[in-house]
Amino acid sequence: MNLEDPVIAVIGAGAVGGYYGARLIQHGHRVHLLTPSDCESIRRTGMQIHSRDGDFSLSANQINVYGDPRAMPKADLVVVTLKTTANDRLAELVGPVVKEDSIILTLQNGLGNEELLQGLFGEGRVVGGMAFVCINRTASGEIWHTDHGMIRLGEPRGGPSERARKIARHFSDSGVPCDVLDDLTRGRWDKLIWNVPFNGLGAALDMTTDQLIASNEGLSLVRRICEEVIAACRPLNVRFDLNVIEEKIRHTQTMGAYKTSMQIDRQMGRRMEIEAIIGRPLRVARMNSVEMPSISMLHSMLSLLD
Amino acid sequence: MNLEDPVIAVIGAGAVGGYYGARLIQHGHRVHLLTPSDCESIRRTGMQIHSRDGDFSLSANQINVYGDPRAMPKADLVVVTLKTTANDRLAELVGPVVKEDSIILTLQNGLGNEELLQGLFGEGRVVGGMAFVCINRTASGEIWHTDHGMIRLGEPRGGPSERARKIARHFSDSGVPCDVLDDLTRGRWDKLIWNVPFNGLGAALDMTTDQLIASNEGLSLVRRICEEVIAACRPLNVRFDLNVIEEKIRHTQTMGAYKTSMQIDRQMGRRMEIEAIIGRPLRVARMNSVEMPSISMLHSMLSLLD
Repeated sequence: MNLEDPVIAVIGAGAVGGYYGARLIQHGHRVHLLTPSDCESIRRTGMQIHSRDGDFSLSANQINVYGDPRAMPKADLVVVTLKTTANDRLAELVGPVVKEDSIILTLQNGLGNEELLQGLFGEGRVVGGMAFVCINRTASGEIWHTDHGMIRLGEPRGGPSERARKIARHFSDSGVPCDVLDDLTRGRWDKLIWNVPFNGLGAALDMTTDQLIASNEGLSLVRRICEEVIAACRPLNVRFDLNVIEEKIRHTQTMGAYKTSMQIDRQMGRRMEIEAIIGRPLRVARMNSVEMPSISMLHSMLSLLD
Repeated sequence: MNLEDPVIAVIGAGAVGGYYGARLIQHGHRVHLLTPSDCESIRRTGMQIHSRDGDFSLSANQINVYGDPRAMPKADLVVVTLKTTANDRLAELVGPVVKEDSIILTLQNGLGNEELLQGLFGEGRVVGGMAFVCINRTASGEIWHTDHGMIRLGEPRGGPSERARKIARHFSDSGVPCDVLDDLTRGRWDKLIWNVPFNGLGAALDMTTDQLIASNEGLSLVRRICEEVIAACRPLNVRFDLNVIEEKIRHTQTMGAYKTSMQIDRQMGRRMEIEAIIGRPLRVARMNSVEMPSISMLHSMLSLLD
């Protein structure tokens, strides 16, 4: 396992994976990007990153980009940024770059991704993480990073590990603030407190984040959904103060007229990450006999839209 | 009170009021239409009705149309087809045509309209009713009647009255099937069983009625909402068999890609009839300690959109 100067594969280099991959390349890492849809275009014209932390470009010859994972080298660190709607293809897309001692970091949305990867590649291979970043891909190789940017990662079980710290350092040294979490489960639910209301309502109502918090009706609905998420993780011994809700709303205020990924997917007629972001939290709640009436309704409405 | 050959005022001759008004004119009734927005246009070019029961036109000189109710004659029968979002203007818009013995028939959506009119004009003056009609107004004086068409009316208290039967006959004789209900409250809730899911979801998700029932996800969501409406009226001694839900769905199948009025209002950026169709039923349910979790969520989402 070489985590000092790892060969890094980014599986699913769309907006989030493309941005982090580009930052790692910019800072001299050995990175290989998998993006079937954008591969040809990036090979011709490279990547343009419009970032609130400074714009930069990568020319085509700086980037190792692939349309087929079987053409990629094995990687020490495999960063999975696929949409969870492609999780039925994890074996096929991630498998070819995994070797005996690869570490797999999933930065995917919602719940259940570590478990799927552990099932496919072994329990000890997987580190979980989350991207807190406002990012859109407007064309092949063209990414707009408009707010935030931090990654938080952690072990699926137990506290901070040495390997998690090493991975985090590569991101931090590449202009991407990166924390190691004491408790990944808590981290996942912390992100869901934002993701469920803003992705869910944004997609269902076709509204941007600023529109969702512009009225008292919107704020009280967002708060009600956040409260249901907070109630759902209590049986998991994950406790949040209700103050966290106002903090999330404050963080949303700086984002402007941000379209969540789920809203964009709806507008583009693409499949939305309903299951990972809403369906699985709902199932966890049900298993623990916690009611989430508003989120259950939101889930049904989104499933209908999908 | 002249209900044999009444002078009829239609207050709010948009799609529904325009269509019924036109049918009454077509069959020789003395009708006066109030429609501030379309008045000038109808005075120039008349009305064109594209109806599944046969197209017809009315020339400008066949129609008494007004932009200001104070210019209208007093009426024996006042048919109120205003959007409920204009209910704060009932006194101003209806008052000028009401005389000592006028009967007021409200064909407005949702709950609470009879009570408002009774409060303004006296308890004995008001008959309630519902329009079961798929109708859209595409331009001033241009109305498309695409499915159904029936009116059901009844006394706010008590069974069928002679005056209700007389009013119904004028519609029936004018090509508009019209029943007199034994129980208006039951009729109102019967209509809500359709209106809450189809107007509510149609507007919230911006989907047509056929899209709402095209998938199992949609059907089960529609059914869940219908069940909540049915549960809400049980404390009012209004009982529906659950079969009524499948009947509503069957009636919806003939409508094609129908946009409910609330979906159209959303698309046009106009105020939606959220309070009459969803807010008031929700309040009735709460007063009777009945939970409507899905409808409560739908109400919050629609209020946010509005």
